[in-house]
Amino acid sequence: MALVNPHGKEKKLKPLLLTGAALEEEKKKAKSLNQVRISSRETGDLIMMGIGGFTPLTGFMTRADWEGVCKKFTMADGTFWPIPITVSTTKGQADTLKVGEEVALVSEENGELMATMKITEKYELSAKDKEFECQSIYKTTDMEHPGVAMVMKQAEVNLAGPVKVLSQGAFPREYPGIYLTPAESRKLFEEKGWSTVAAFQTRNPMHRSHEYLTKIAIETCDGVFIHMLLGKLKPGDIPSDTRQKAIDTLIEKYFVKDTVLVGGYPLDMRYAGPREALLHALFRQNYGCSHLIIGRDHAGVGDYYGPFDAQKIFDEIPAGALETKPLKIDWTFYCTKCDGMASMKTCPHGKEDRLILSGTKLRKMLSEGTEVPDHFSRPEVLEILRAYYAGLTEKVEIKTHKYSEGA
Amino acid sequence: MALVNPHGKEKKLKPLLLTGAALEEEKKKAKSLNQVRISSRETGDLIMMGIGGFTPLTGFMTRADWEGVCKKFTMADGTFWPIPITVSTTKGQADTLKVGEEVALVSEENGELMATMKITEKYELSAKDKEFECQSIYKTTDMEHPGVAMVMKQAEVNLAGPVKVLSQGAFPREYPGIYLTPAESRKLFEEKGWSTVAAFQTRNPMHRSHEYLTKIAIETCDGVFIHMLLGKLKPGDIPSDTRQKAIDTLIEKYFVKDTVLVGGYPLDMRYAGPREALLHALFRQNYGCSHLIIGRDHAGVGDYYGPFDAQKIFDEIPAGALETKPLKIDWTFYCTKCDGMASMKTCPHGKEDRLILSGTKLRKMLSEGTEVPDHFSRPEVLEILRAYYAGLTEKVEIKTHKYSEGA
Repeated sequence: MALVNPHGKEKKLKPLLLTGAALEEEKKKAKSLNQVRISSRETGDLIMMGIGGFTPLTGFMTRADWEGVCKKFTMADGTFWPIPITVSTTKGQADTLKVGEEVALVSEENGELMATMKITEKYELSAKDKEFECQSIYKTTDMEHPGVAMVMKQAEVNLAGPVKVLSQGAFPREYPGIYLTPAESRKLFEEKGWSTVAAFQTRNPMHRSHEYLTKIAIETCDGVFIHMLLGKLKPGDIPSDTRQKAIDTLIEKYFVKDTVLVGGYPLDMRYAGPREALLHALFRQNYGCSHLIIGRDHAGVGDYYGPFDAQKIFDEIPAGALETKPLKIDWTFYCTKCDGMASMKTCPHGKEDRLILSGTKLRKMLSEGTEVPDHFSRPEVLEILRAYYAGLTEKVEIKTHKYSEGA
Repeated sequence: MALVNPHGKEKKLKPLLLTGAALEEEKKKAKSLNQVRISSRETGDLIMMGIGGFTPLTGFMTRADWEGVCKKFTMADGTFWPIPITVSTTKGQADTLKVGEEVALVSEENGELMATMKITEKYELSAKDKEFECQSIYKTTDMEHPGVAMVMKQAEVNLAGPVKVLSQGAFPREYPGIYLTPAESRKLFEEKGWSTVAAFQTRNPMHRSHEYLTKIAIETCDGVFIHMLLGKLKPGDIPSDTRQKAIDTLIEKYFVKDTVLVGGYPLDMRYAGPREALLHALFRQNYGCSHLIIGRDHAGVGDYYGPFDAQKIFDEIPAGALETKPLKIDWTFYCTKCDGMASMKTCPHGKEDRLILSGTKLRKMLSEGTEVPDHFSRPEVLEILRAYYAGLTEKVEIKTHKYSEGA
């Protein structure tokens, strides 16, 4: 059996990153081009196009693509796609740029030259258009929602056109061995003889409930791909080095060799819940994963989505839209009467038998040095998290906030 | 989403059981027909044809079917089938029966009229043919193998032809609410809103390891169908009423309502390991199950099969041969270091941390009243089994035998 095919009609990875002489030549040419400054989210999207994670995209989306994706999950050429992938600039700059012109896309954070783009279309998004995008994708126009805020605050004019990607930013340097391209993960899966691989999306350290999710996947698939978000998170999240150390230790002590692979990908979180779950499945297909674990409140934030909306949406898209299938799992926990891990679907017992801790409560316990109840997390993992909290020179404000603890 | 289709090109259940006036008429006609006495195995196969469990069979197999099934899992018309479904009689009787003649098929056990069959072909199986069948299906010609013994001891001539089934034997009367036809289980699944259903094949009471298998299935499917063999077992197995009581109690105390359904089916065990696993999946497709749990040594006996041969064979049959897929799970057990149930695929710890008891050892403990180690089985289940062993008036001989403990 073989791995799932990359997304799109051609069933072939389409990395847009230039290499070798072509890269040097394009970089040289880029010096003379007008520059468009791009945000962290846009940079992450661009790198994903570069490494083939967003196959079969060839660049940023046109107005027809944008509208089709919002309205019916479909680009103008019929390709299934759940979230607009767009780049924007101010009306002021847009007026100085011509359709047909090539521009350089430059990181607003550090000025790095990321790509060149041939502009094929400029289209303004009115406030009403942006609200339509937010309502379609995020199911809300509430500015408290971090994904909505990103869209509403972006500049007025979207630029569409094919891109040539020139850099992967700091990811290869900062996360050696963890940051993987789809071609690399596919090669590693094949070397292990895996054909069914479940991806586990994470932006947090893993406790027993997360371990249980991945172990259910290992019981039924060839292996699990613990796939960490390396892009921007929200304040208060555990930084990636501590998270990685905790996950590595968990794997070393509690997983069988060659049933698990850890990797990272360069996107920022959008917190779009169900729509983002579809995007997560789509790019996992490019990475070679046959399944994506979808637990409670996947990619959610606050109370904007029902806890299992991100599972249900997979039943609403056309059959065959994605080869990668959801591995839908209910809310998981340790139960004393079950004498082990369970979920709402497998444990018939009461609240009093179940060990459920919110992430907020856990952070409070760890930073205050209180004992965490047995069975909640592996002692080796808690030790690493305790050391992290103890080492914080500035006291982190631990407060109850609206952010969820989903994947 | 809908349930899987029944097996065969027509994708429609094909029960061969007559009812109403047609049944009465056929019974009357059968009185004047020559009688062929059929074994317990043949009776079970006939009832499965009657209720549509062996869809799309129309009767017992021809020589071309028999040979195609042995050699390449395929009947003469191209239908995938893993084990010959045949009926035999002595050469003496066969010589008195004419091709084109209708005969009555009568249980050799109790003389019950089970079916009528129109003979379309008579074919002798030489000792060499039988060895070929055994080697193809059972991978051995060892007479110690109970399935091989059944084939080698059967009479010399197979009769082929379409059947009209006239009775389900004692099953509906002896197992009310448990004995289900494929049409009935499909209806029950649909009423529960299930589309993905994993079947769990069992001929034993369920301990923690079996519970774990079914709970992995529940975590990832809509529900689990605990499907008990109601036909003949081997000596020393727990009788079906005790088994059922133990399973009912387990479900009541440890499963969530409406995630599990218990049913039974009328076949005898053949102990054909991998080939029987395929047959188990095939008829579960007719029962409406999208998956069949295949654990260690499924349908095996002795040391005739590798512990995971019954999983591997699903990769060797043509893609699309069966809609029902295997849910392959490794050897499962409780592990102290894992602090819960695990398998060889998810537990990296040592033998000393794992609680593994053979069925033989467990029977010894239960019949001698020794305490069974914690975490091996639910206390409520052990209580029922202890009562059964205590109640045996004749002391059952507990001996180490070659029979395996697989499903």
